[in-house]
Amino acid sequence: MRPSGRAPDEMRAIDIQTGFTKHAEGSVLIAFGDTRVLVTASVEEKVPPFLRGKGEGWVTAEYSMLPRATHTRGSREAAKGKQSGRTQEIQRLIGRSLRAVVDMKKLGERQIVLDCDVLQADGGTRTAAISGAWVALRIAVDKLIAEGKIKEDPITAQVAAVSCGISEGTPVLDLDYIEDSSAHADANFVLIEGGLIAEAQATAEGAPYDEESLLRLLRLARIGCDRIFAAQAKAVGR
Amino acid sequence: MRPSGRAPDEMRAIDIQTGFTKHAEGSVLIAFGDTRVLVTASVEEKVPPFLRGKGEGWVTAEYSMLPRATHTRGSREAAKGKQSGRTQEIQRLIGRSLRAVVDMKKLGERQIVLDCDVLQADGGTRTAAISGAWVALRIAVDKLIAEGKIKEDPITAQVAAVSCGISEGTPVLDLDYIEDSSAHADANFVLIEGGLIAEAQATAEGAPYDEESLLRLLRLARIGCDRIFAAQAKAVGR
Amino acid sequence: MRPSGRAPDEMRAIDIQTGFTKHAEGSVLIAFGDTRVLVTASVEEKVPPFLRGKGEGWVTAEYSMLPRATHTRGSREAAKGKQSGRTQEIQRLIGRSLRAVVDMKKLGERQIVLDCDVLQADGGTRTAAISGAWVALRIAVDKLIAEGKIKEDPITAQVAAVSCGISEGTPVLDLDYIEDSSAHADANFVLIEGGLIAEAQATAEGAPYDEESLLRLLRLARIGCDRIFAAQAKAVGR
Amino acid sequence: MRPSGRAPDEMRAIDIQTGFTKHAEGSVLIAFGDTRVLVTASVEEKVPPFLRGKGEGWVTAEYSMLPRATHTRGSREAAKGKQSGRTQEIQRLIGRSLRAVVDMKKLGERQIVLDCDVLQADGGTRTAAISGAWVALRIAVDKLIAEGKIKEDPITAQVAAVSCGISEGTPVLDLDYIEDSSAHADANFVLIEGGLIAEAQATAEGAPYDEESLLRLLRLARIGCDRIFAAQAKAVGR
Amino acid sequence: MRPSGRAPDEMRAIDIQTGFTKHAEGSVLIAFGDTRVLVTASVEEKVPPFLRGKGEGWVTAEYSMLPRATHTRGSREAAKGKQSGRTQEIQRLIGRSLRAVVDMKKLGERQIVLDCDVLQADGGTRTAAISGAWVALRIAVDKLIAEGKIKEDPITAQVAAVSCGISEGTPVLDLDYIEDSSAHADANFVLIEGGLIAEAQATAEGAPYDEESLLRLLRLARIGCDRIFAAQAKAVGR
Amino acid sequence: MRPSGRAPDEMRAIDIQTGFTKHAEGSVLIAFGDTRVLVTASVEEKVPPFLRGKGEGWVTAEYSMLPRATHTRGSREAAKGKQSGRTQEIQRLIGRSLRAVVDMKKLGERQIVLDCDVLQADGGTRTAAISGAWVALRIAVDKLIAEGKIKEDPITAQVAAVSCGISEGTPVLDLDYIEDSSAHADANFVLIEGGLIAEAQATAEGAPYDEESLLRLLRLARIGCDRIFAAQAKAVGR
Repeated sequence: MRPSGRAPDEMRAIDIQTGFTKHAEGSVLIAFGDTRVLVTASVEEKVPPFLRGKGEGWVTAEYSMLPRATHTRGSREAAKGKQSGRTQEIQRLIGRSLRAVVDMKKLGERQIVLDCDVLQADGGTRTAAISGAWVALRIAVDKLIAEGKIKEDPITAQVAAVSCGISEGTPVLDLDYIEDSSAHADANFVLIEGGLIAEAQATAEGAPYDEESLLRLLRLARIGCDRIFAAQAKAVGR
Repeated sequence: MRPSGRAPDEMRAIDIQTGFTKHAEGSVLIAFGDTRVLVTASVEEKVPPFLRGKGEGWVTAEYSMLPRATHTRGSREAAKGKQSGRTQEIQRLIGRSLRAVVDMKKLGERQIVLDCDVLQADGGTRTAAISGAWVALRIAVDKLIAEGKIKEDPITAQVAAVSCGISEGTPVLDLDYIEDSSAHADANFVLIEGGLIAEAQATAEGAPYDEESLLRLLRLARIGCDRIFAAQAKAVGR
Repeated sequence: MRPSGRAPDEMRAIDIQTGFTKHAEGSVLIAFGDTRVLVTASVEEKVPPFLRGKGEGWVTAEYSMLPRATHTRGSREAAKGKQSGRTQEIQRLIGRSLRAVVDMKKLGERQIVLDCDVLQADGGTRTAAISGAWVALRIAVDKLIAEGKIKEDPITAQVAAVSCGISEGTPVLDLDYIEDSSAHADANFVLIEGGLIAEAQATAEGAPYDEESLLRLLRLARIGCDRIFAAQAKAVGR
Repeated sequence: MRPSGRAPDEMRAIDIQTGFTKHAEGSVLIAFGDTRVLVTASVEEKVPPFLRGKGEGWVTAEYSMLPRATHTRGSREAAKGKQSGRTQEIQRLIGRSLRAVVDMKKLGERQIVLDCDVLQADGGTRTAAISGAWVALRIAVDKLIAEGKIKEDPITAQVAAVSCGISEGTPVLDLDYIEDSSAHADANFVLIEGGLIAEAQATAEGAPYDEESLLRLLRLARIGCDRIFAAQAKAVGR
Repeated sequence: MRPSGRAPDEMRAIDIQTGFTKHAEGSVLIAFGDTRVLVTASVEEKVPPFLRGKGEGWVTAEYSMLPRATHTRGSREAAKGKQSGRTQEIQRLIGRSLRAVVDMKKLGERQIVLDCDVLQADGGTRTAAISGAWVALRIAVDKLIAEGKIKEDPITAQVAAVSCGISEGTPVLDLDYIEDSSAHADANFVLIEGGLIAEAQATAEGAPYDEESLLRLLRLARIGCDRIFAAQAKAVGR
Repeated sequence: MRPSGRAPDEMRAIDIQTGFTKHAEGSVLIAFGDTRVLVTASVEEKVPPFLRGKGEGWVTAEYSMLPRATHTRGSREAAKGKQSGRTQEIQRLIGRSLRAVVDMKKLGERQIVLDCDVLQADGGTRTAAISGAWVALRIAVDKLIAEGKIKEDPITAQVAAVSCGISEGTPVLDLDYIEDSSAHADANFVLIEGGLIAEAQATAEGAPYDEESLLRLLRLARIGCDRIFAAQAKAVGR
């Protein structure tokens, strides 16, 4: 029995609230249980220097946790004067995951920045961020299409992410904070609608794991991502 | 007629939602119209070095704006590696305002950190932050009292803040972003329940102002703060 | 009786020495009693990015205290790698105060930087800096006019600043360090020649204050600024 | 045919030179083909704050690339004033990988720092660093055992890492720079002697990949790591 | 003929004004012609970590130039967030030079910090700083002796510094800015009362120099330092 | 007798290995005894802003020590977020020394960056770096000439550097770490082939030194540099 009473292959409740803030071109408050991440998509009519004049766009992400999103207060990165290695690792993963489903030529020479700010953390913040970022991106791109700024849809597929892990010897889906703290393997999968994989990361915490466990975790991730794909589709009305 | 259709002495809708997040000892989502600030109060059983061993507590604040809280995306301070002068000025003001109503000896040797994160900005973010911070602080202190960690209530009064300004020649209360951008005087008042002043700041933008205008702005601030005091009291059930 | 033996509405000796250094377009060593601030005005034939090509000028300020300007040595901000919140707050105030009396179109597309470096501190450094900065600015602008670079005088009035506070229950003018440390209200007023207000900031330290006190402090500031206006006029030979 | 003429499951030449520098407790110059990484192990008789007094040790890593280790010169991180996200991600991975095979209680309250400096880069620098770090760690620990500072061997197994990827549609082992630049999936596996997995990371670059590819890449990694385990054993004389 | 009309072995006017500021234990405004440096000596009853508990003192220095000490305004190091290589090189030289004449055991476990702030620059700021720092140090140490905190005088000799260079083919003493900009060798000598050398630095700018030139520059430095030693002695009344 | 058994005027073994890494236009591993520095020369077809459009080139250097190049591990400057004063002082010296033998007009509008990374330190790292940098520069420039990018050789002479010092009362050449730690005068000379001086720096550590000692140290430096000039010539096949 998991601490939350869930079955091993059971996701927490997924909630996606669009339009949570009004200024951004796309704005989503996504919840995986008690984990809540505010994601905004900002369209900027410029691209990073290495892309200037190439007629291609860019999608990038920034990630942050509010100091008291967690059980005990963490120090504010802006006050410390630098982003942690963990923050940078996560925001690189989010950006890469979203770029996996965007055709940059169709997007045109503009950049979409996905800001993922964790309002409350209970495990799985990076995977909730990726899953919510797709919705914010979809909304922002739909707006660009509606305004006639983009002719062909640059988004090639849905992308979603979920964490899995081996907790008390059992592979389980969508770890909350309690499970995450004690799991001895911790994996994050970023999957594409249809079943292909954009990113797989599985880390041993304590004891290493075998190939069968890796496959079992991937199986659980497929179950979770199917749930998220459905919630994303519903949120954007498709 | 103001852009929002409000009367000169009319506040925007005040909304105070307590318990918006679950980990903090006090958590409040406060809205002044479309301005929305998430404030958490974190109790730490330690004090800054200059107070160690003196038996007194401390109250401090940090302030930040999510990058896309505003009309166009601002860069993230954590990514830039430093807090702007504006951010530091505001968080110093918030901390000072709250300390004006706390008896540090009664609080005991512990620190309460008020994190004010602006989720959506439409003018008046610092005054909403102060007004919400009092509620978060009240909830956190009530918890300390309920747990028996504090014997006598260290909070001596309510404190609230509101912005006023001279817009199109007319002194008006609680400026939204449109008014704030074009106002030629911009004031923030931090008032104590009962009428005393904790902080008055009135800045000319463009033309300087006269003493009568200063007094008129203070009058408006009294009207606004009375509304906020009532909303605060209701939010904490007093 | 004040620690210095002054009457409540008595300023310290004001001394303004122009041409203290030779390279700057304007250079002033201003003293309010033992507080001494070196202010230089540097004319730069360029403007910040947000003003480029608009035909308007800019006035900005930087502020710093020498490490041993104070009773005990403070650490050097350049060595710590960042400016304190206090420093940033003060230099923003100085810049804003001077801009209140400059017509940016008449100044033309150039920037004047006012560097305010406190050589010795005894209370009121920011107000001495503002008052001295006006003189340095006046000298630099006169030079631009004499050289034919500016046709019409862009300076619209004198601006001066002074601190006031409630010390031992009595509102007093121009606090020195001893009074400043123990005052329970601390105010800075930036006034325009003729009586209008550019900036009013009054902060409770400890007990909040009432409206009458605010007005009384403003009254004292008018007395002080009249003294400063006279000293400024004499320094620039007007 | 691969650009290097290698078969898909063929590693580059592995060269491990121990004692490359004289001061460190362990020092190794490891080469995977033209990729050369200098790894030193430094024993420090102290642990990070979160471990003090617990009787447990710690193993951590730092990673850097010399500015001209690459085809074109990159800027020096010390000169820029911060480590890139990539650097932090890699050094976190190295530390985690080595900790997977160390019993921290047996290590005792001391820290071993593994400095991995890339002298020349041609793909696979992080995996060469991990593989070399194990050798440097083994040498340093053997020294501690020989000196009687450690009683029981804290190293539980060998650990090695290798990169794999899908290049021109074919899964290949141990990518060099040319392959790495054009691969459309890029994976790093950290394997434990005997076959268990410490870390699996597989990222799509461009097109996502399927489950069969992930398994095929893991198969290749096993072939490569067996080669590395043998080279490590030979280098430390076991 | 030198631009200033001076003979090759002629120093500029040396002026040493003690007690320029009131808080520091030693305070000096030193001028070499138009170069003016404010030096303060601050006594701190603590030492850097590497000296704690050893019963020895420390002397260190910090150096800075006000932004408009120079012909054109330089950016403020505190605003840029770091000290330049030039600044660090100079302050290391100043500290080293003063430590050459202090017996750290006699100083006792305390630190004296010499803050050298250039108010106006016209060549030779580092050598004026060293020469003034000795006076500030002497005054601060005399105060410690007078207060009975130090028993035996820890200062073993006078130390002074001067710049020399080869300008228009002629070795000259005490270069001003015009000469310094065009000199093709630039030297700084730190000499001890009596003739010994604490530091010699001679750099070719453009063409390298020969041994005879080095000796000639040292000869000039002796002439200059004798003048400075006399001025120092007079300033401290010895 | 010196700790190493060398005669006072005896250099350590000099070893210069060219082509140590493959990407750089010039690459050298230079050893002075156990001091080993990897120097790469990178040609960049751009110049710093102050030289743009002037048809002249630039030569600059960066210096770093690997954390465990030394007896005990030093912290990594990239991790601390800034370069030490010592590092900046050294890299400024290296760049200046090499520029002394380059005709910037003949080099053309391009920059050569000399990266000097100390792999192992045993005294004299800055002088080994300068001596090796000349070789790397020579190789890179020969490549530019061979490619027809440069018509006339911009290198006007060889440059080499060596440290000398007064150890146990005796002037000695090429100090290793043991001597360097206890020497009471420490000098670095940068000499040009033929005998002219590019830079002389002699610092008293403890007791000041006299003019005769300075001359004796210079004499030793000439002996050492002649050895280095020969090794450089052999390394580049001239």
